Amino acid sequence: MRLAKISFFREPAGLTVAEIVAMTGAEPAADAPPDRAIADIASLERARACDLTFLDGSKHLDALAATRAGACLMTGEFAAQAPKGVAVLRVKEPYRAFVAVARALHPDALRPSTLFDAEGAAPGAHVHPSAEIEDGVTVDPGAVIGPRAAVGSGTVIGANAVIGPSVQIGRGCAIGPNVSIVHALIGDGVIVQAGCHIGHDGFRYHSNARGHVKVPQLGRVIIQDHVEIGAGSTIDRGGGGDTVIGEGTKIDNLVQVGHNCTIGRHCIVVSQCGISGSVTLADRVMLGGQVGIADHITIGEGAMVAAKSGVISNIPAGEKWMGYPAMRRYDYLRIFAQMRRRPK
Amino acid sequence: MRLAKISFFREPAGLTVAEIVAMTGAEPAADAPPDRAIADIASLERARACDLTFLDGSKHLDALAATRAGACLMTGEFAAQAPKGVAVLRVKEPYRAFVAVARALHPDALRPSTLFDAEGAAPGAHVHPSAEIEDGVTVDPGAVIGPRAAVGSGTVIGANAVIGPSVQIGRGCAIGPNVSIVHALIGDGVIVQAGCHIGHDGFRYHSNARGHVKVPQLGRVIIQDHVEIGAGSTIDRGGGGDTVIGEGTKIDNLVQVGHNCTIGRHCIVVSQCGISGSVTLADRVMLGGQVGIADHITIGEGAMVAAKSGVISNIPAGEKWMGYPAMRRYDYLRIFAQMRRRPK
Amino acid sequence: MRLAKISFFREPAGLTVAEIVAMTGAEPAADAPPDRAIADIASLERARACDLTFLDGSKHLDALAATRAGACLMTGEFAAQAPKGVAVLRVKEPYRAFVAVARALHPDALRPSTLFDAEGAAPGAHVHPSAEIEDGVTVDPGAVIGPRAAVGSGTVIGANAVIGPSVQIGRGCAIGPNVSIVHALIGDGVIVQAGCHIGHDGFRYHSNARGHVKVPQLGRVIIQDHVEIGAGSTIDRGGGGDTVIGEGTKIDNLVQVGHNCTIGRHCIVVSQCGISGSVTLADRVMLGGQVGIADHITIGEGAMVAAKSGVISNIPAGEKWMGYPAMRRYDYLRIFAQMRRRPK
Repeated sequence: MRLAKISFFREPAGLTVAEIVAMTGAEPAADAPPDRAIADIASLERARACDLTFLDGSKHLDALAATRAGACLMTGEFAAQAPKGVAVLRVKEPYRAFVAVARALHPDALRPSTLFDAEGAAPGAHVHPSAEIEDGVTVDPGAVIGPRAAVGSGTVIGANAVIGPSVQIGRGCAIGPNVSIVHALIGDGVIVQAGCHIGHDGFRYHSNARGHVKVPQLGRVIIQDHVEIGAGSTIDRGGGGDTVIGEGTKIDNLVQVGHNCTIGRHCIVVSQCGISGSVTLADRVMLGGQVGIADHITIGEGAMVAAKSGVISNIPAGEKWMGYPAMRRYDYLRIFAQMRRRPK
Repeated sequence: MRLAKISFFREPAGLTVAEIVAMTGAEPAADAPPDRAIADIASLERARACDLTFLDGSKHLDALAATRAGACLMTGEFAAQAPKGVAVLRVKEPYRAFVAVARALHPDALRPSTLFDAEGAAPGAHVHPSAEIEDGVTVDPGAVIGPRAAVGSGTVIGANAVIGPSVQIGRGCAIGPNVSIVHALIGDGVIVQAGCHIGHDGFRYHSNARGHVKVPQLGRVIIQDHVEIGAGSTIDRGGGGDTVIGEGTKIDNLVQVGHNCTIGRHCIVVSQCGISGSVTLADRVMLGGQVGIADHITIGEGAMVAAKSGVISNIPAGEKWMGYPAMRRYDYLRIFAQMRRRPK
Repeated sequence: MRLAKISFFREPAGLTVAEIVAMTGAEPAADAPPDRAIADIASLERARACDLTFLDGSKHLDALAATRAGACLMTGEFAAQAPKGVAVLRVKEPYRAFVAVARALHPDALRPSTLFDAEGAAPGAHVHPSAEIEDGVTVDPGAVIGPRAAVGSGTVIGANAVIGPSVQIGRGCAIGPNVSIVHALIGDGVIVQAGCHIGHDGFRYHSNARGHVKVPQLGRVIIQDHVEIGAGSTIDRGGGGDTVIGEGTKIDNLVQVGHNCTIGRHCIVVSQCGISGSVTLADRVMLGGQVGIADHITIGEGAMVAAKSGVISNIPAGEKWMGYPAMRRYDYLRIFAQMRRRPK
């Protein structure tokens, strides 16, 4: 196998420097050839003469000096340090502009696609006759769509995914392979990566001397528009009310969200976080990797929790906390510094 | 979609107040109408006039004062504070009684059901001709049941679940979608939630200068009656002997149980715990979320380990430990308090 | 069910003591009968008269004194303490020799096999007509192999596994049930346990006041020869370049590897580790369970990180670190000891 030759996306259609300028609002240097063809995007180090690259901040000036890129998005500050021949495109937020071009060049990378070049329901998919599948839905082989489920136009249901009875999935979603979704209502433009399990029983028992009696879990999962959930994550349905994931929130791989949680809009939850039952995250909360949050905790708008923290008290809006038990970041770092410098 | 109208369980058949009294042993207030119809259960805040609710302790007296429930299970202590019109049902353990009614009203929520309204083996299930499937087993589409496997009456095998050769599954079990079970013997009344992977190779190598040589993992997984295992959890089979999960033990989502572990009866293991190889938990041990336990550790009967602890020494029966390295909870809290109050 | 009678592997063919001597280079005691039949391997405690066992170090001398094994691999030091009748086989590295015999007796336990006694592509497997499947590949029911994928001879694709378009899988691999692999190139002799999800989108967004814009993830996953990945683990593909897992590296269950990571050769990554994006592990690095590593960190050759540590700075080759933030193990233990012995 010639590994370097194998690509999993379609060859981009390409753009000219002028088209990139129009798309990003960049100001081209006087010697930037407007009709130069840009085939793809790449980092400063990897870029070929047909690639667009970018410089953000002053950290990679060495790489800039050595780059062979055809064009570079950057602020004006370091423009003079770009090698001769690179078309310098000045822009206020170079990375933002770079991402915009990347998205335009690679529309097939914006969400997972069919894994079988399927159109409509592939042979080997199991769609219950009572399910309502809009036109323009793709169902890969082995996917199971249960009775009374509904799937909106443009959505892809991945191979061997399982959609339970009465589940509603909106338009333009991508449901990955081997996902299961039950007791859930999913909005538009939602991405559920492979192997997520959504809507299963919360972990709730009434314990007595003889053991643990299962408490019926009667609620649902509501996932609002433009949420993305990473591979292998689990989101339990509500016990009485619902578990809600707010619009635009992004959840990484192997995250656990317990029953009755309310996650706000535009939150970021990094890999392997564990969010216990009945937790509330307000909008734009950020949780680092492997954070744990005790049940019934509330975290205020825009608060940030450092990786590996364990949160057992409410966090006010806008604050940065860390440690276990988590406390204000400043306090934690002070205590930690003292510990390190104590006499031996 | 009118989201609020979508329910995933059958409409409960309903009970009268008199039937609830009979079921729970509660003592109805003099003005509680015995023939009042109770359609469902709900929290104090959500309950409608046709719902049963409960009050446990003194924490929710405001909600009690405002509830519109048709009936309320509670101790005698706060009975006078219930709004007029609520049928007060006095009982020693209100939550326990509430759960009993919830279970009676929602028999379809006691364990996961078929996701395809299937009866028997659905079209699209792959059952090996040598498998022994008792009458009354439901197999959803895409499930694979291997040679010489046996499945007991009343058990549901979820869509796209995989049951390996010679695996034995008892009666009245629910195996979720996308589960895989190999090299395992499963008792009666066991619930395995979606995406669990049971019985695969333990993590054991003999390492030398040239690399890591895989050590054959020849044991099995034994899961006793009435165990429940949460979505996405993994339980490795024994290396020589067996990995055993004791009767009535409840394991949450994304938990790892290593090879040769012996987990006792009626334990509680919260989400994302990692239990290394050859660990022994006695009966009724409770592990909080994200706990890690080093290999060959023994934890005594009824011991409790706080969330996020790392256990590297044996824990005697009945003790409460926390921290990393875990120590008695009292010691940990003392050290932690000292750290916080030290002069700056 | 007579549980004790159920075995999931083939009855081993058996070896004589003389054959074991030849295989391991052991020196048999004068009274060891060379033609004694050894049917299987077992621990000192479990061994029957037809089993081979081993003693490593001085920890299990009581068990040695009581063993009923037919033969025992051990160093010369404790040979006199073996019960009469046990064939003592002296060898420098008893466990290594024991593993060699175990592997010879149980060739079917060296990697997962078909779960359906399948040969070739089982009925119910979905293989795209453009996929290139070499002779001697086994595909279990429900597996999906996408367009232009290639699978090498001797490889087993487990039930309900999903292999995406253009994925290349080498020879002699075992891909477990319910696995998904996309955007990936897999070498020879690779084992991917059940429920792994490989090659899905990395967690990368460009955030602004309006929310989080998905950054196209254009790279791949490269898994070199003889890697093993545990059940439920997730490995994201590169954003621009590739995510690489080096030859012979062994990864346990429920591990997360972020985009653009480079994991060296012969590393050991224990269960539930979280490796953020763009991390580099050199060769022979060992990570204990539940370790977290921040993005862009480099860990040097042969370094060891204790369980539950959180690594936020680079670790030089050969060092042992622990704690959060992780530091040299010696420093951490000193600080921790001071904390514990402070006056109350």
